[in-house]
Amino acid sequence: MYGKIALEECWAIPENFEAYDPNTLAPPGVIGGNLTANLLDVHDQRLRQMDENSIDLMVLSLSSSGVQGVTDPTKAASLAVLANDRLEAEILKNPTRFAGFAALSMHDPQTAADELTRCMTSKTGFVGAMLNDFQAAGPDGNTMLFYDQPHYDVFWRAAADLNASVYIHPRASTPLIHEQMWAGRPWLEYSALGYANRVNMHVLGIICSGVLDRFPKLKLLMGHMGEHIPYDLYRIDHKLNRARFPDMPMRKDKLVSDYFGTQVFITTSGHFSTPALECAVKQCGAEAVMFSVDYPFESIPNGCVWFDEHVDMNARDKVKIGRNNALAVLPKLMEKPHGLKMLSPAEAGEGGLGLRKGNEKEAEFGMYNKSWDKRMKKVVQQDS
Amino acid sequence: MYGKIALEECWAIPENFEAYDPNTLAPPGVIGGNLTANLLDVHDQRLRQMDENSIDLMVLSLSSSGVQGVTDPTKAASLAVLANDRLEAEILKNPTRFAGFAALSMHDPQTAADELTRCMTSKTGFVGAMLNDFQAAGPDGNTMLFYDQPHYDVFWRAAADLNASVYIHPRASTPLIHEQMWAGRPWLEYSALGYANRVNMHVLGIICSGVLDRFPKLKLLMGHMGEHIPYDLYRIDHKLNRARFPDMPMRKDKLVSDYFGTQVFITTSGHFSTPALECAVKQCGAEAVMFSVDYPFESIPNGCVWFDEHVDMNARDKVKIGRNNALAVLPKLMEKPHGLKMLSPAEAGEGGLGLRKGNEKEAEFGMYNKSWDKRMKKVVQQDS
Amino acid sequence: MYGKIALEECWAIPENFEAYDPNTLAPPGVIGGNLTANLLDVHDQRLRQMDENSIDLMVLSLSSSGVQGVTDPTKAASLAVLANDRLEAEILKNPTRFAGFAALSMHDPQTAADELTRCMTSKTGFVGAMLNDFQAAGPDGNTMLFYDQPHYDVFWRAAADLNASVYIHPRASTPLIHEQMWAGRPWLEYSALGYANRVNMHVLGIICSGVLDRFPKLKLLMGHMGEHIPYDLYRIDHKLNRARFPDMPMRKDKLVSDYFGTQVFITTSGHFSTPALECAVKQCGAEAVMFSVDYPFESIPNGCVWFDEHVDMNARDKVKIGRNNALAVLPKLMEKPHGLKMLSPAEAGEGGLGLRKGNEKEAEFGMYNKSWDKRMKKVVQQDS
Amino acid sequence: MYGKIALEECWAIPENFEAYDPNTLAPPGVIGGNLTANLLDVHDQRLRQMDENSIDLMVLSLSSSGVQGVTDPTKAASLAVLANDRLEAEILKNPTRFAGFAALSMHDPQTAADELTRCMTSKTGFVGAMLNDFQAAGPDGNTMLFYDQPHYDVFWRAAADLNASVYIHPRASTPLIHEQMWAGRPWLEYSALGYANRVNMHVLGIICSGVLDRFPKLKLLMGHMGEHIPYDLYRIDHKLNRARFPDMPMRKDKLVSDYFGTQVFITTSGHFSTPALECAVKQCGAEAVMFSVDYPFESIPNGCVWFDEHVDMNARDKVKIGRNNALAVLPKLMEKPHGLKMLSPAEAGEGGLGLRKGNEKEAEFGMYNKSWDKRMKKVVQQDS
Repeated sequence: MYGKIALEECWAIPENFEAYDPNTLAPPGVIGGNLTANLLDVHDQRLRQMDENSIDLMVLSLSSSGVQGVTDPTKAASLAVLANDRLEAEILKNPTRFAGFAALSMHDPQTAADELTRCMTSKTGFVGAMLNDFQAAGPDGNTMLFYDQPHYDVFWRAAADLNASVYIHPRASTPLIHEQMWAGRPWLEYSALGYANRVNMHVLGIICSGVLDRFPKLKLLMGHMGEHIPYDLYRIDHKLNRARFPDMPMRKDKLVSDYFGTQVFITTSGHFSTPALECAVKQCGAEAVMFSVDYPFESIPNGCVWFDEHVDMNARDKVKIGRNNALAVLPKLMEKPHGLKMLSPAEAGEGGLGLRKGNEKEAEFGMYNKSWDKRMKKVVQQDS
Repeated sequence: MYGKIALEECWAIPENFEAYDPNTLAPPGVIGGNLTANLLDVHDQRLRQMDENSIDLMVLSLSSSGVQGVTDPTKAASLAVLANDRLEAEILKNPTRFAGFAALSMHDPQTAADELTRCMTSKTGFVGAMLNDFQAAGPDGNTMLFYDQPHYDVFWRAAADLNASVYIHPRASTPLIHEQMWAGRPWLEYSALGYANRVNMHVLGIICSGVLDRFPKLKLLMGHMGEHIPYDLYRIDHKLNRARFPDMPMRKDKLVSDYFGTQVFITTSGHFSTPALECAVKQCGAEAVMFSVDYPFESIPNGCVWFDEHVDMNARDKVKIGRNNALAVLPKLMEKPHGLKMLSPAEAGEGGLGLRKGNEKEAEFGMYNKSWDKRMKKVVQQDS
Repeated sequence: MYGKIALEECWAIPENFEAYDPNTLAPPGVIGGNLTANLLDVHDQRLRQMDENSIDLMVLSLSSSGVQGVTDPTKAASLAVLANDRLEAEILKNPTRFAGFAALSMHDPQTAADELTRCMTSKTGFVGAMLNDFQAAGPDGNTMLFYDQPHYDVFWRAAADLNASVYIHPRASTPLIHEQMWAGRPWLEYSALGYANRVNMHVLGIICSGVLDRFPKLKLLMGHMGEHIPYDLYRIDHKLNRARFPDMPMRKDKLVSDYFGTQVFITTSGHFSTPALECAVKQCGAEAVMFSVDYPFESIPNGCVWFDEHVDMNARDKVKIGRNNALAVLPKLMEKPHGLKMLSPAEAGEGGLGLRKGNEKEAEFGMYNKSWDKRMKKVVQQDS
Repeated sequence: MYGKIALEECWAIPENFEAYDPNTLAPPGVIGGNLTANLLDVHDQRLRQMDENSIDLMVLSLSSSGVQGVTDPTKAASLAVLANDRLEAEILKNPTRFAGFAALSMHDPQTAADELTRCMTSKTGFVGAMLNDFQAAGPDGNTMLFYDQPHYDVFWRAAADLNASVYIHPRASTPLIHEQMWAGRPWLEYSALGYANRVNMHVLGIICSGVLDRFPKLKLLMGHMGEHIPYDLYRIDHKLNRARFPDMPMRKDKLVSDYFGTQVFITTSGHFSTPALECAVKQCGAEAVMFSVDYPFESIPNGCVWFDEHVDMNARDKVKIGRNNALAVLPKLMEKPHGLKMLSPAEAGEGGLGLRKGNEKEAEFGMYNKSWDKRMKKVVQQDS
């Protein structure tokens, strides 16, 4: 599909490597060559891969745990300002291809609201904010600040007023919980399962706290096909028994599932599974799902080949998921300096015959293999 | 779901019983009590069932084969005028609950265009037309007139200009083909399979003839979950090989699947199957599908219980299928004297807790059975 | 997937080209290069493509309409004998890679039973029979003989006793019906829709006639993802109203859907659509579905790339569909001289890490694109 | 469906109410009337509901956290013996309707192995074991013992040798983690999301530890539609990157998904969602899924009405999920004193016409509402 927009795409600044060293996550050679270099780059191989894979625009965000990993409030606030200034500068070099989610220190809700306001009003590259799960605090980093507490309303109000959608992204656990639960089995703590298990609780906590009811313009985003929640919406709705939990602040006439597609949205980042996508679309509707890659922790061509060639879905829903929903949820993308527009299926190369480059004869030859009598293998073309 | 709209709902006038006797289709007692009485009724038990099952409005049409079964052109044209005048009168008795599809003689395209124009401009109850497959002609009724022939463009142009969507409905075969193929096995000829097998060819013929390309505002409707076509869209697109069929008039840069949801729409009439509905939605998108019953050949409560209670789908898509798509495809329904409006999921009682009557505690008790410790059986309530 | 078995794979003998000229179907260059040459070939490029695409064995059958197109009973019977003798000879050149469905003249049920008995008992390559819809008869070819008539029981009894599954394949219409319905629009008559519309009636007629009840060991096969029937099973079951059709011979305590997976089986031939496959599996179960290509009317690599790479399904069901079901339905394939065995998912290269050639690092790099940072395109490898 | 088997069905003994008071979970009136009474009962209203809802047999287990909540090893071992002796006595009162999962103290693997051996060899009612997530230990209950550690192999070996499948069930968190993560929001900690988030890590840890490779006969069960794992299998397989985690003990040629349906099985307990069930069946195959209710925390009629009437699936897969898979995974159920047998779809009342009580005319009247022209409401029948 032409014109895709990708939303959970990371970059880094060296000043953050003290709190966050990509090499501890994956040594060079293990994920995508050199993770550190890929995080630092914006306009070189990242842009080349966007071109090769028909990604029109990436919304960049500081790599997790980013500011949420800085336990000192002052340092955290400074890092946010620094990261946002740097990101604005990078975006303005090519604003039709890049936009940004603001990094925010969440130690103090008012500080977060102020910095988000600065980014959304005195800068032009930003379209929302990215929070990496809880804000780590305390001398040993074992204190977790969750944003479903009432004093965070000042932040949520600012986000709603600014039309700044807030993406809640996973992060690593605290040292204490890590020691208790995953010592010796690092494979359990991270992206295979642990990330989702923690961040889905945080998002559910925010929903149950009534924040979305108090700020009905507020919109939240989650990655990784919704961090398990779409699959479990029946059980979540059913088990949040109001007789059992009379003090739960969420509106009593609503179900958690009601918020999906109106105030909560999910992306496909790092979860390129068609059965999962289909389950999410059935449960939440195509308006609730948006394409993303999770670069550089995921391969851009892997995610794009999946979405472009393997997802078998009607063209309208595919273009919503690949692009148009992002413009509805992040309306600043349609303003200057980004200036993106909604596309029809035909404009995005979905549906039709001969619209997609190289597919001119698919209805004649079949859509899965371009040669009639030889199995074609995927190989890197030197001249591509 | 509250506020459903149903589109393939039949009625009859006694003047048509010469060409079409419901008793030959099903003797009294076999389908819904008394088929003839049910067809003749509008405002009595039909309306009561609409009330009991939350159908806001039915678009009525003359029962198949209707005018398409009248082989004499003059008689056919007269029957169309008579049926449309009668239908207008019935609609105007209760125009917020009923609307109509015009019956048309298709012996002569200009006559059809003129009568459709009369219905859409000098009457207020009509929102489109219903054609029952081919027009039977010739002395023995064995001549079949198909509307994909070029001289029918005068009719299609009128329909497009009038914003009159055209529903293509099945009908019985000719005597000659019946004798050759189904003599002695009437179970094969009718609604189990034969109806779909013939009408899907006619609709595909219209699409392949390029009519939808020449009149891009024209919209076609098909019942019975698309008469098999959604399931076979890959094969249809793939096998309409343009190298093999260079003379096929349809636009060469389009696939048949491209028309679904933009110019071709399907309804659920008489095919209350969730797996089929899900296949259709995946292939065509929720915008392409609309609820219908096929009364009185189908039971209103059976179709509505299926859609309301058994279809497990996100609330937005459900309300599109149950109501809002019909308003988009038949915009006259939003004008006077009908005056219907789009509904949100909450207004239609989809999603939410306690919004659907009697479901006040579903998140506590579970949505499938209202008693915690007794299996409730469905029984006729005397007072309902 | 390794070890696939394909069941609807055509070949031809020149003696049949009088009744059936492939060039009238598609001139050279339009379907797969040279259709005539591809039909005549068994051991050359056909086998090479089987090797390249991991097809273990093809069950060959005489190209439609074959014997069913020969209106003279004597000539038809002779052609069947000739074709079967030729096919046996070809199979015996490489019996672990090829088997055969017998061609049969259906003018006379006893003749058909005798020839099927000859093929299944005095030859070793045959595993069942292939019938191309109705037997054309009469001087002008307009008479259609359908096998749901009672006097065909002698044939069905023989098939059941011989454990010979019978594949019902589509064919072209009669000249008379063609003239009435598709004159001037050849795109409607053939594989896009017309084939399925006619053959599904014939198969449904056989089921409704009670043949499967009288011969409970009898098994029928249908291609093209079930010729629309799986999508419509609800409507078929619902509309075969026994009160309305009291004379329908099928067992009154059964539904048509009950026969799928026990006595009726479908293949994927020429319908490489994942949504359709998923609908069929949900309706009929994975035991009812079998892989096939429909070579040379379809491309072997296109069908195999679809099934191997695009169908996202648990490994057990995939291996059932790709191979093991065929061995259960055609048990002679497990006997000499074919000698095939059931495979586990691991043996078939499904599931697991590093089991599929070239996929050694898929869990590391992602399964859709083998390069981390370059989009690989499908190109013909010269050395493959 | 007739003949269902339910596997995650709880009971309690008063001696456990010190560690586990159901009233703290839900005061009387909130869940199913009186949770305590429902837990203590076996042969009264529990059996009556099984009769009303066509559950042939329940496998009972001590309510969570059961022995896993007893931090003192000696007391834990004694409670296990007591609970198992009591359960055996109850089962033997009606062994064709009840069987048991053994409760085990997991403080010491050898003690667990010995008690499991005692239950499986010197008693006749037991078919496996039920473990409630981690064993709480330490003076404050904050120590969590996980069974993926190497010294638990003595337990896993015993389970495998005894053909005793092991069900891993959720439990509440430790006081320390509760305080850190859910203080003040109890709705997050329990069954809506917290249970699944913790127990899925434990099960994944066991799989990744290689236990299933070392004991290939060992089978694990999980409830709640797989505790999110089926939805995330792509991401789990993809992110357990062996280059990144070279020390992960699981076989390097396998994926986590490979174990589902062969050594890992899931149940529908408390997650009566058709979209989730369909996602699980597509990902894991129908052989991997088994019906369960989670009584008395869930309503028996709610779960059974869902499965019997709302799950639209081919009859073979439905009977596998409803009954036959349980007999394959827990083969002792087919031995004395239980003596259950596999059922065909017809024997289980699935498929067919008139086989299900009260459905005699469903192909005539439609399957969703038994009255043709009145919407029937669900009401409690006094005489049912």
